[in-house]
Amino acid sequence: MTLPQVPFDDRGLAYGDGVFETVLLRNGKPVLWAYHVARLVKGCQRLGIPVPCQEAIDATWQGNATAPLEVLKLIVTRGSGGRGYALPDTPTPRLLSRRTSFAPMVERWKSGVTVRICRIRLAHQPALAGIKHLNRLENVMARQEWQDVSIAEGLLADAQGQLIEATSMNLFWQQHGELFTPPLDTCGVAGTLRAALIAEGAVREANLTLEALPAVERAWVANSVQGVWPVATLLSEDADCLQRWPINQPDKLQTQAHRLLGYASTYTASPDLFC
Amino acid sequence: MTLPQVPFDDRGLAYGDGVFETVLLRNGKPVLWAYHVARLVKGCQRLGIPVPCQEAIDATWQGNATAPLEVLKLIVTRGSGGRGYALPDTPTPRLLSRRTSFAPMVERWKSGVTVRICRIRLAHQPALAGIKHLNRLENVMARQEWQDVSIAEGLLADAQGQLIEATSMNLFWQQHGELFTPPLDTCGVAGTLRAALIAEGAVREANLTLEALPAVERAWVANSVQGVWPVATLLSEDADCLQRWPINQPDKLQTQAHRLLGYASTYTASPDLFC
Repeated sequence: MTLPQVPFDDRGLAYGDGVFETVLLRNGKPVLWAYHVARLVKGCQRLGIPVPCQEAIDATWQGNATAPLEVLKLIVTRGSGGRGYALPDTPTPRLLSRRTSFAPMVERWKSGVTVRICRIRLAHQPALAGIKHLNRLENVMARQEWQDVSIAEGLLADAQGQLIEATSMNLFWQQHGELFTPPLDTCGVAGTLRAALIAEGAVREANLTLEALPAVERAWVANSVQGVWPVATLLSEDADCLQRWPINQPDKLQTQAHRLLGYASTYTASPDLFC
Repeated sequence: MTLPQVPFDDRGLAYGDGVFETVLLRNGKPVLWAYHVARLVKGCQRLGIPVPCQEAIDATWQGNATAPLEVLKLIVTRGSGGRGYALPDTPTPRLLSRRTSFAPMVERWKSGVTVRICRIRLAHQPALAGIKHLNRLENVMARQEWQDVSIAEGLLADAQGQLIEATSMNLFWQQHGELFTPPLDTCGVAGTLRAALIAEGAVREANLTLEALPAVERAWVANSVQGVWPVATLLSEDADCLQRWPINQPDKLQTQAHRLLGYASTYTASPDLFC
């Protein structure tokens, strides 16, 4: 299949001037679609990019499924034109998409993962926080910090040591039996699974420092494509072990999140939910 | 002429994972070329992108000039591949370029310009500061703050109110007869003209707050393509006039900078330098 292309003067390429979404398709149907559309619209509005019409957005997934699970990636750029950073007088955004078959890493749901703390700190930029824009060099730099395949994710904090997210997932933790995730009004990407869990009242926003993280009762990293990975081992920037959490117990967050995604929960799943 | 294209999975498009240069060509030859190459190399190294070979970089401008002055734009992306933010095992960077004829805005050299202070503040990210990477949404957001064509540039400060740069130019000022420009180790793009002026000892780095700006003796915005624009009028975020500086006097910064660029200096130019 030929990939869509953009020309040299597309502002998505030139400046990262656009937004994207990565959507789980189950039997050809997008999961948490309303949340993805909402974030896409919010991102376009924040950047001042005309929102593509709903029919065009829907057309990106309307077609025959080639696998039970796929990932749909959507990119909206401001299109070509403008003089330097100045906007074109009549912007013509580009909407590009691609779908590829997908299989989640089920073993990570069950056994949990090792995560490390990243050295790079996320910069505060309230004007861009929360949306899934195309300026993702901080994430790329963070992901370059380790090559060890036994490390599944890296946790990102801001310059003040407040935890924000993982490189491509949101962070969740349990304290006094309640579930929390960091606020994302200064940096980070507000995931759609995170939004759905907050909307259901399962998770609340709270601050958590790097120093306080080892003392939480449990921790997870999660997104709407991979599902929920319990954190089994927490490593420092220097790969020292800071904490190990037991995994074999009922997992309230995974159960609720995987119900939203149509994935099995390792501990409480009905058999028909297994994919 | 057909523009070069990049595919959907190019990391420059997906994440802004790359760097660029905008180079003045005079009679087909790049101006301040060593500084542009140095910044491109530094940017690639900072991001961990293999540096394209010098022959490939030079080939972007080796060809017949189509106009006395042109602008060459170079983009280097990390290329396609990788899983999410993780790098491809064997990255194959893309080097793309385009040249277009150009004419500087000579009237702005002579009469000076009006600049305004932007509301958006630049985020501190030392890992990315100084290099000309493709994550430029802050600049795009800043440039959206005004449509008034009588305003030539917008000045950007950080969250602490320290001045950093203009949206597509560097900032310079004179105090006690000496010339200064802000340090760019936490944010901003270190321009090649700025680098050349520092190398010649004409300009030194110093801090300047938004509050102190109106009291400087003179101010300029400048880059290696447009040359040096004296600031005649400084406007606040709300378009209130904060200061007016006289323009009709010998201009040490413009003279030295325009000699480097081969442009006329409005006040002291030899006739043969006029383009």
